[in-house]
Amino acid sequence: MGFWKTWFSTPEAVASSRTNSFEEMSAEVVGNSSSNGEGVTPPKETRIVFSTERDIDLYELEELCDAVGWSRRPLRKVKKAIEHSFLVATMWQVRGTQRRLIGFARATSDHAFNATIWDVVVHPDFQAKGLGKALMKYVLKKLRSEEISNVTLFADPHVVDFYRTMGFVADPEGIKGMFWYPQ
Amino acid sequence: MGFWKTWFSTPEAVASSRTNSFEEMSAEVVGNSSSNGEGVTPPKETRIVFSTERDIDLYELEELCDAVGWSRRPLRKVKKAIEHSFLVATMWQVRGTQRRLIGFARATSDHAFNATIWDVVVHPDFQAKGLGKALMKYVLKKLRSEEISNVTLFADPHVVDFYRTMGFVADPEGIKGMFWYPQ
Repeated sequence: MGFWKTWFSTPEAVASSRTNSFEEMSAEVVGNSSSNGEGVTPPKETRIVFSTERDIDLYELEELCDAVGWSRRPLRKVKKAIEHSFLVATMWQVRGTQRRLIGFARATSDHAFNATIWDVVVHPDFQAKGLGKALMKYVLKKLRSEEISNVTLFADPHVVDFYRTMGFVADPEGIKGMFWYPQ
Repeated sequence: MGFWKTWFSTPEAVASSRTNSFEEMSAEVVGNSSSNGEGVTPPKETRIVFSTERDIDLYELEELCDAVGWSRRPLRKVKKAIEHSFLVATMWQVRGTQRRLIGFARATSDHAFNATIWDVVVHPDFQAKGLGKALMKYVLKKLRSEEISNVTLFADPHVVDFYRTMGFVADPEGIKGMFWYPQ
C-alpha cells in the first residue's frame, strides 16, 4: 500500500512544478530516505514519477513499446517525432537510484489552439493500477497550463471507454475523426 | 472556361516546385502576360495559385474566416498557431498584380509520423468549383513529400462526405476521434 500511497500524493506536486525534469528531483528524495540515522538500510522505497524531459533512451522506449506489442518504428523517425512533439510525457518507476520507463505519451500541437495526443503506452506490468489515468492527467494538466483549448486524440476501440472516463467525448456534435489513405 | 483550364494545369507544377512562395512566381507570370506586343491590354488573366508561404496578412485571413462564419480568434494566437504549424497552405486568386486570399488550411505534425489538418476554409464565392478539393490535394501532396505516413483530421458532419471523396476514411478499424472537455 505504501507504494501507491506515496505515488498518489505526487501528481499535484508534479503538475505544479516548473522544472522540466521532475524525475531527477524525485530520485534524489528517494536516495536520501534510503538510509536512516540508525545505520540500518530499509527496503528501497518505490515511487512513480512523471517527467517532460525529452532526453529519453530510445532503446528503453522501444522496449516499452515492444512490451505492448506495437510494431517497431525506425528510431531515427522516433527521435525526430520526439523532437517535434509539443509535449513528451514519461512515467518512471524509481527505486533507490534506479529508474525504469513504464509509461509514455506525447502530443503534437500548434502551440495555440489544438493539441493531439499520440502514442499513449503503459507497460503491461503496471496496467490496471490507475497509472494510465495518472499519466493522462499529467498530460492534460501540462497541456492546459500551456493554454491549449482543444485537446484531441484518436482512440483504438478497446480504449475508447478508458478515455471517456477521462472526460474525452467521441464524435462531439457529429465531428468525425478521419484518416487519409492514398487512393 | 479559360479561368479553370488555366488553373487545372497548375497543381502538378505547384506540388513539384521546390520554392516556398509559388504565388510570387505566378504573379510574375500573370504580370508578363497581361499586355501583348500589339499595344493592347487584354482582360487580365485570372489564376488560382497555391502557396506554403507563412507571411500571411492576418486581417485578410480573418476576413476569409469571417466570410464562412467562423468565430473570431485572437490574432495573437492565430499568429502563434501559424508559426507552429508544420504546413500552412494558402490559395489565391491572382488577377494581374493583385491577389486575393480565397483558401487556407494548415497542419500540425511531429514531422515524422502524424499530421493533422486544421482550419480548412474556402471563400463562399469560390466554393462548389472543385477548389476545396484542389486545396486539399495540394496539402496532401505537400505532406506526402515530407514522408508523413498518417494524415488525419476532424471533420464537421457536413464535410465528412467531401473528405470521403478525397480518400479519407471515418473511424477506420473502429478508431474514434475524441475531444477532451474538462470535467
